[in-house]
Parts: sequence; structure tokens; C-alpha cells
Amino acid sequence: MRWILAHIGSRLPAGDPLEALTQTWLRRIGSFAQAETAVFATEAAFWDSLAKKQRRTAPFLVALDSRGREMSSEDFAAWAGALRDRSTQEILFVVGPASGWSEAARDQMGAMPHLVLSLGKMTLAHALARAVLAEQLYRASTILSGHPYHTGH
Amino acid sequence: MRWILAHIGSRLPAGDPLEALTQTWLRRIGSFAQAETAVFATEAAFWDSLAKKQRRTAPFLVALDSRGREMSSEDFAAWAGALRDRSTQEILFVVGPASGWSEAARDQMGAMPHLVLSLGKMTLAHALARAVLAEQLYRASTILSGHPYHTGH
Repeated sequence: MRWILAHIGSRLPAGDPLEALTQTWLRRIGSFAQAETAVFATEAAFWDSLAKKQRRTAPFLVALDSRGREMSSEDFAAWAGALRDRSTQEILFVVGPASGWSEAARDQMGAMPHLVLSLGKMTLAHALARAVLAEQLYRASTILSGHPYHTGH
Repeated sequence: MRWILAHIGSRLPAGDPLEALTQTWLRRIGSFAQAETAVFATEAAFWDSLAKKQRRTAPFLVALDSRGREMSSEDFAAWAGALRDRSTQEILFVVGPASGWSEAARDQMGAMPHLVLSLGKMTLAHALARAVLAEQLYRASTILSGHPYHTGH
């Protein structure tokens, strides 16, 4: 299974602490999944790339939005495990632009059968949302593989 | 108003990206509130210090817990603004130990009239929860002072 953590905006410089954190958590996911980042300059570039991709692989799309569905870390891990067991090849997580998703993007999301995931009711800086998601992906991989990280040890 | 962002555990090294992020957001709060960090080695040390403090200043205590009350960033800002307007001198936010709050601490929190705040249903690494809270405090200060950070500009 491949996890792609995409965001819309500009690439963070390598020395940015949020970039460093995100990359550290993605590296730790290790054998559970292949995890990497992707950047799209605009919403349009993202939907365009997705349309091209869907002709080949049809990734499972997860858009991040504070108005979406909230899950506990355990439920998120169970959800990821179920997708893995159904042989889903690729899950594409996407964090919206710094100024939030456009109304057009919200309509597009509403029309898709995939998940709109909320990390909580609070609005997070988009590079911070990406780091939090990377930590949750790492946490999910430890829950599914029985590693004791999630219990704080 | 003074905001203290405490956590239970050990002090993070100065070069840690989560420590750097937390300190950056707290510094930016600037004129809205005085914001600083505090560290307590154990839950017992925290409750002990709080009991001593309450004889003098009675800070408003906010314990962070995923089972607590969730608020949007706007509601969180309005809540902080209301406390400021009631001349609350100090708000003490506290993030629990890496392994989570003990049952005894949960009982103690339940008996207090203050807020148990949730950043979302997911369990966050405790140093990450602290960085997210620092960003929300900064965001609240920009919302209350009319700075355009919150709208992503």
C-alpha cells in the first residue's frame, strides 16, 4: 500500500521544522506502507493530476477538512487496515490551500465517494495539519503492527 | 493576561522541531497575552504546584484531553476573549504525560470547575499536542485582534 500525503501550495524549505517532522514520521512508517509527500501549486493542478491518475490506478482519495468526519486514532487505524486488506494500492491524502478549500472544491469533494477527514474542529495551519496527519499515519501503522508507540511507551 | 502552556514529562531539547515551533508561536502572540511554557516532571508535581499557586492567584486551569470539549478556532478565540474581559490574570493549559492522564488525574479534573479541552478525537503525541495548542493560541490572538492570519492571508 502506498500513502501519499499531498498538499496544495508551495513546497516547504528542507530546513522548515514542520517539513522535518512530516518527513521523520513518514520515514518511520517503514514496512507497513510506502509513504511519501506530493505538492500541487493550485487546486486546479491537483484535480487535473487526479483525473489523469484515475485513468490508471484510481487512488482512494482522502481530503482533509475540519468539517469532515472525525475518528479516534484507533478507528483511523482500523479504517486504514480495512483498506489494506481490500488490496487498495494507493491512498491519496490531500491538505487544502492555506486559505482553505474553495467552494468549487467542496462541491467536487461532495460528489466523490471517498472520505473527507477532519483532524478536529479547530482550523490548523495547513503545514501543521500535514504534520499532524503524518503522525496519525505513523500511529496507525504502529497500532496495526502491534508496536507500543500508541500506548505512550 | 498570562497564558502558560505546561506539559508533564521532560523538557524538550532546544533544537527539537516541536520545541522550536511551540516557542515561535508563543513569541508571536506578542501584545495580546504574555505566553510562556512550563514543565512538570510528574502529574503529582503538577497538582502540587497548582495547589500552592491557588493560594495566591487561582489560575484558570485548562487540561488537554481528547475526551474533552472540542471547539472551533473561532469559539476558542471567543472563549479566550471572554476570560480576558473578565480580567482573568492567568490561564494555565496543561498537556498530560506521554502515556496519557492517569485515572486519578481524570477524577481530579472532573471535580474542578475548569475546562477540559480536546484538540480532536485523535490521540496526538504530547509534544505535538503542545505545538498545536500554541498555534491555536496564536490563532486566537490574531482573531481577537483582527489580524488576517486566520483567513489564510
